[in-house]
Amino acid sequence: MKTVIGIDLGGTNVRVAKITENGEVLQELKSPSYGMEGPEKVTSNIINLVKQIEDYKSCVGIGVGVPGPVDTVNRVMKLSSNLKGFTDYPLAKIMEEELGLPTYLDNDANVAGLAEARVGAGKGLPIVYYVTISTGIGGALCVDGKVISGRRGYAGEVGNLIIDPYRAPFNNLNAGASESEASGRALTRKGQEIFGEDKINHAGDVFALAQSGNEEAVKLVDQLTTDLAVLFSHIALICDPHMFVIGGGMTKSKEFWWDAMIEKFQQRVHGGMRDVTFTVAQLDEPGIVGAAMLPLSYGL
Amino acid sequence: MKTVIGIDLGGTNVRVAKITENGEVLQELKSPSYGMEGPEKVTSNIINLVKQIEDYKSCVGIGVGVPGPVDTVNRVMKLSSNLKGFTDYPLAKIMEEELGLPTYLDNDANVAGLAEARVGAGKGLPIVYYVTISTGIGGALCVDGKVISGRRGYAGEVGNLIIDPYRAPFNNLNAGASESEASGRALTRKGQEIFGEDKINHAGDVFALAQSGNEEAVKLVDQLTTDLAVLFSHIALICDPHMFVIGGGMTKSKEFWWDAMIEKFQQRVHGGMRDVTFTVAQLDEPGIVGAAMLPLSYGL
Repeated sequence: MKTVIGIDLGGTNVRVAKITENGEVLQELKSPSYGMEGPEKVTSNIINLVKQIEDYKSCVGIGVGVPGPVDTVNRVMKLSSNLKGFTDYPLAKIMEEELGLPTYLDNDANVAGLAEARVGAGKGLPIVYYVTISTGIGGALCVDGKVISGRRGYAGEVGNLIIDPYRAPFNNLNAGASESEASGRALTRKGQEIFGEDKINHAGDVFALAQSGNEEAVKLVDQLTTDLAVLFSHIALICDPHMFVIGGGMTKSKEFWWDAMIEKFQQRVHGGMRDVTFTVAQLDEPGIVGAAMLPLSYGL
Repeated sequence: MKTVIGIDLGGTNVRVAKITENGEVLQELKSPSYGMEGPEKVTSNIINLVKQIEDYKSCVGIGVGVPGPVDTVNRVMKLSSNLKGFTDYPLAKIMEEELGLPTYLDNDANVAGLAEARVGAGKGLPIVYYVTISTGIGGALCVDGKVISGRRGYAGEVGNLIIDPYRAPFNNLNAGASESEASGRALTRKGQEIFGEDKINHAGDVFALAQSGNEEAVKLVDQLTTDLAVLFSHIALICDPHMFVIGGGMTKSKEFWWDAMIEKFQQRVHGGMRDVTFTVAQLDEPGIVGAAMLPLSYGL
C-alpha cells in the first residue's frame, strides 16, 4: 500500500505524519512551527521532522496544508498572516530538493475537504462540497477526488459570500458575508450584543438560551439557519454537489440548527436538488490526512 | 483530425452538424424538432438527420445539447418543459443503438460553456466560468475542458442565485434571484414599470434612456451593475475561475454596464482575485459546437 507524508502547518504548531492511501496514520510527530521566526527556520524544522519519519524515502510524495490561499501551480502561498514571510516563499521546492520527494501545497480548508472526499464522509462520490463552520467559515470543492483550488487558491472562500447585502461589514469581509453572520464567532457576537459578554462566552450559550425559550435567542438561531440555508443554496446552484460535508465546531451543536437549515435550504433550490445529502465530517484529523491525500490527488 | 456530431435540440428547431475537434463546422442540417409531438417523433427525426451527414460513421461520437437539466450519468433529461415527454426518456441510448456511435447529453448552457472553454474565449485555461445573460441567466463551470454538471445537472443554475433576499419573487425563482433582477427580461420589466410598456420594448431602451441622462434609468442601470457584481462575486468565491466568459444578448449593450460591473465586482472579492479576466464569448454557434465537444470532454 502507498504511503504519503502529510504535513499540517499552522502558525503555532506543525504536525508531520506518515499516512496510508486509505487515510490511516502510521506515525505522527508534532512540534512548534516557529511561524513568526521566518520561513528558513520553519522550513528547516519541517525537514528535520520529515527525516525522523521511519523510512520516509519510501513514501510517494509530500503534501502540505497551510493557513491561507495557495497558488497551486507555482506551489506558493499568496497571503500568509500566520506564517511570517511565507507569501511566494518556495517551501515546496526547497523540501523537494532536500528530501527528494515530490511536494504539493494547498490551504487547510481545501485539504480537509479533500480528506473527507477521498477517505471520509464523501468517499467515492464525484462532487463533494466541504464547508467548515467554526470561528470562521471556509470551504472546498472536490471533483473526482481532486480539489478545485482555483486560479489563485481562492476557490472555497465561501466565508466571504454575501448572504444579505444590507448588514454591517466586519473584518474586511463583504457586508453580510456568511462568516460575519453565520459562523460560531458571529453567533457569539450577536448574542453578546443582546445579552452581554458575561452571559455569552460562545455560540453554545446562545443555543442554550434559545432552547430555554428565550425569544431573542430563538430569533438569533432562526436567523442563523436562514443565513446558512442561503449560503448552501449559493453553493448548490453553482456546483450541484452529490454531498455537502460539514465540519467545524458548530457541528457539535447541530441538534439546534441542522434540520431547520436543511428545510430552509430546500425552499431555495430547484425541486430536483432538494434531496442532496448533508453529512457531518467523519475524520478526526482531516488537516493532516488531507495534506497526505494531496500528492495522490495529483496522480502519484 | 477527429470529427464529432453535434446536435442542438430545442423545443422548436434542431440542428445537426459534423464538427472538427477544433470547433470547425463541416456540414450542418436544420429541421423543426417536433418538440411537442412526443419523444419518438423527435428521436426518429434526429436519427434521420444524422444519417444525412456525410460519412457520419467516421465521427468519434455524438453530443446533444438539450433545454433543461440533465442527469449526465444516466444520460436523461430531468425536467423538460419545451420537449414533451423527455423527462427520463433514453434518447442517448436509442441513438447509440440506431447509429452505433457513443452519445452524450448535457444542457444547452453547459455545452455553450464547454465550447467557450475548449475552442473559444477560454481555450486552454484550467477553470472557465461561462455565464449567459440574455432573457434569462444561466451558467457553466468548466474544469480542464470538462463541464461540471453536478449530481442531477443543476450545476450552473446561477439564474436562481440570491442577489438580494428582500426583493419580490418571480417565475418560481428565489426572491431576489439574479435572473429576476439582472437579466435582459428583468431590466425590461423594471423599465416598463417606470416608463410604461409603450416606451420600453427591450433592455436596450433602458440603456438608451440612461445614456440620455434620465435619472430613473440611470438608477436602474446602476442597480443592474451592482446585482451582476454580486452574482459574479458569488461564483468567484466558490470556484475562483481563471476567466469569466460572458455570452448572451446583454453583451451587445456591454458599453453601458461592463466596466461599472467589474469595478463593483472587485469591491466584493479578496485582493488577489480582482484581476480575473472577464471576456465576451467568442463563438457564433456555441450550442452546436459545444454539443460536439461533449464526447471529446469524456475522452473520446
